[in-house]
Order: sequence, then structure tokens, then C-alpha cells
Amino acid sequence: MARRKKIYEGKAKTLFEGPEPGTIVQYFKDDATAFNAEKRDVIEGKGVLNNMLSEYFMTGLNNIGVPNHFIRRLNMREQLVRACEIIPLEVIVRNFAAGSLSKRLGIDEGTPLPRPIIEYCYKDDKLGDPLVAEEHIAAFGWASQQDMDDIVSLALRVNDFLSGVMYGVGIKLIDFKIEVGRVYDGDFQRLIVADEISPDSCRLWDIATGQKLDKDVFRRDLGSLTDAYSEVAKRLGVMPKGAVPMKPTLIN
Amino acid sequence: MARRKKIYEGKAKTLFEGPEPGTIVQYFKDDATAFNAEKRDVIEGKGVLNNMLSEYFMTGLNNIGVPNHFIRRLNMREQLVRACEIIPLEVIVRNFAAGSLSKRLGIDEGTPLPRPIIEYCYKDDKLGDPLVAEEHIAAFGWASQQDMDDIVSLALRVNDFLSGVMYGVGIKLIDFKIEVGRVYDGDFQRLIVADEISPDSCRLWDIATGQKLDKDVFRRDLGSLTDAYSEVAKRLGVMPKGAVPMKPTLIN
Repeated sequence: MARRKKIYEGKAKTLFEGPEPGTIVQYFKDDATAFNAEKRDVIEGKGVLNNMLSEYFMTGLNNIGVPNHFIRRLNMREQLVRACEIIPLEVIVRNFAAGSLSKRLGIDEGTPLPRPIIEYCYKDDKLGDPLVAEEHIAAFGWASQQDMDDIVSLALRVNDFLSGVMYGVGIKLIDFKIEVGRVYDGDFQRLIVADEISPDSCRLWDIATGQKLDKDVFRRDLGSLTDAYSEVAKRLGVMPKGAVPMKPTLIN
Repeated sequence: MARRKKIYEGKAKTLFEGPEPGTIVQYFKDDATAFNAEKRDVIEGKGVLNNMLSEYFMTGLNNIGVPNHFIRRLNMREQLVRACEIIPLEVIVRNFAAGSLSKRLGIDEGTPLPRPIIEYCYKDDKLGDPLVAEEHIAAFGWASQQDMDDIVSLALRVNDFLSGVMYGVGIKLIDFKIEVGRVYDGDFQRLIVADEISPDSCRLWDIATGQKLDKDVFRRDLGSLTDAYSEVAKRLGVMPKGAVPMKPTLIN
């Protein structure tokens, strides 16, 4: 098999040229990083879980007509996605205070917010993905006003749907992050949800116990990250109990 | 205990004056009717299941900021709700063709629709709740243009959330019906979701098998209605397996 061309290697995923023009293969690594990669580890099986869970959420969003980049899963670690021009923003939707918001504004984690709050961070690892306001986005031309309207509408629909998915299995959606990309159908431009949706990109708390089932388990050394992600996958029927692969090297 | 004043008796629910002004007690009956009450039966336990399930969905909607009439559940068969002026429309949201749409337009049941379709029926039992267009609603003054915009926005948010809840437990949300009511906060009017959300008011198909888990089981004589509703409740953790009461007279 010919070696594929690597397009980009990020902290948790590697992107390769896809088999057809306009497609990309998204490979989910086991690498976990936090605090702008100051904390690092390799968590066996994480990539497999996130690949399956992102497929699950993106398929669900596609079912309800929220456009996204997912085409199909290729294997345990890879999925085929539609190439798009990523808007250089992390779009964060928060339902309850947690993480950087709690720290920045001095609000206890878990405090319900008066309404969902959307935050934007400028995607730049060297700068540590700094928080920006719509004013910066407009002034620097990262997205137009129409783009921003579309991003808000996408983000809120993802929030409603994902809140529902989680509520159905006894999990509270505290917050999540998406990325948005531009695709062109002829002259017509539209925005789609890209990157991934997984416990790496969400905060998920068990409703009954408050137990964290997301990347904070790694960030804060709260136990086994794959156990937490497997619990999410199991509740959603994404992977049957006991089927979570612990030796990803045998599978890929 | 003083006898409560009955406000209205419908096919599946009875409304009583609530303990405080502006509240109503909604009592869920076991009566099942279909085809504008031409088919009738009493299904032991249905009212209890719908009371619990409607509480569950309305609480979830409240969590994500979709305003609705639910205040709290009082007992196995009753819930306290906010009184509102019901807009005389059944608001139906369809994701897949089924029921009257399939019949009317000759589209096979289960066919995905190009996008969610919202239909309105004029609430009038004597007329058999006839389908109406926005043109009729405007002309007869049942709702203003602003009301209609708000109704569409509410209906689509309920659809996104409820699609998510169902997707999380392996169920496809084919369609559902809501009612919408007006409440007044001082001079300010707003619309809220009212009535109920339950397997009486939704079509729910198991994703894996296509099995119907909704009122069509009764309409079409497909088996035990309480088994179907209990399956939905069990998957959502609303009632633990085996806890579904079969003798509602002992409970109420």
C-alpha cells in the first residue's frame, strides 16, 4: 500500500489526504494533552473510543440536518471526512460554569448559567488559544457577520441535540467545543461542523453522582480516562460492555 | 378533602383547578382513543407512564431553556402545570413520513423527509382536528405572525432535543405533536409548550428493529401498549424495570 500523504498532525489527531479529492482521513491518536500540551500522556484505547463516539454524534447530527464533515468510519481509528476550510476559532458552548470560565469569572463549577453562553477562542497553540470577542473576529476578518450568525445557529442546534442525547442516558452536558469549516458547493458557501465531538471535547457529568466522564479525568488525575469514556460509549450503545479494545496496536 | 373543581375532561387527561391561582392539576387517565375516538379502550397503567414520561421530557426541555408548563409531579397520575391560554392548534413536527402524512400524500411510512415538516391541525374534536395552513391561522386570527415564528422556533428546538434523547437510547423520533399556550408576565406575553409529551403524542421506532413503541401499537393492534411505553421508560431510566404499576387503582 502506498504511503499516504500526511496533511497535518495535531495533538490528538493526524490528518491524511483522502482517497478522493475533497476528502480527508482523520486518524485518532491515543495521545492526551492538557493545559496547552504541558501535560501529556498516551492513553491506550482513547483514539478508538473517540473515533467511534465522534462517528456516533456526527451521524446523529446529520440525521437531524445539522451539516458536518463526517462521511464514514473506515476502521477502528480512522474516519473519512469532508475537507473544509477551518475557521480559526474554537467555538465553546457552556450550559454550566466549569473550567476556564469558572476560573476567569470566579463562578463555582456546576453553577447553571442563565442561558447557554457561546465563547470563541482563537485557534493558535503558540498563543494558547486565547479567548476573543466577536469584535476581534470581525476586525481581523476571521469570520463575517453572516458566518457568525450561522456559527451561533449551528452551535445552539448541536447544544440542543447533544443535551438531549446525554439527558437520555443520565449525563449532564456541562459544555463542549466544536470547530466549524467552510465548504463550497459551486459558488455557494456554507458552514459545517468539523473536527470531532467526543469526551475530549465535552464536559460530561453523571446526573446522579456528578462523576466526571470526560477529559477532566485526565487533566485532574481523577482515575482511568478510558474507563470514563467507555462508560459514555456503553450507555449510548456505541460499544458493548467489554468490547472496548485495550490493545489498539492489534486492531489498527 | 374538598372536591376539586374539574375544568376540562379530555380523551386522555382531566384538568382540575390547581392549589394556587394560575396553576392546574393535570390528571393522566388510562383511556386510550384513536381515530377521533372511534376506537377506545382502557389500558391499565398508561396514565402513570405518560405522567412520568411527560415529566421527564418537560424537565429536560426546561433544563435547556425551552419554556413549558410543567411545574412538578404531584403523584403517580397527576402533575401540577402552569395555566395558559392554549392556542387552538396541534403543532406536528415530522422527520419521517408516517400516519396521516403518508396516507394523504402517498409516501411510504418511514421515508425520511427532506427536512422537518411542521403541520398544524385546528383543535376541534367535532371536526376531527382538520389540517390547516398558515393562511387559515392568520385569517381566522388563531395566532399572530409573531406567535407563528415563536411556535416554529419552539417546535424545532423540541425536535432537536427530543431527537437527541431518543437517539441516545436507540429510538428514532418519527414525529410528534405539541400544543402551545400563552402566558403573561405582566404586560409581556410569551409562548410555552403545554399539554404533554409522551408516547401518546410521538411516533417512536426502535432504530435496530423498527419496532413501534408508541400509540400506533394501540391504533393498529400491534400488541401491549404498556409494554411498548414501559420499554421507552425503561431505556430512559424513568422507571426501573419491573416497577411499572399494573394496578393503578391501588396507587392513585
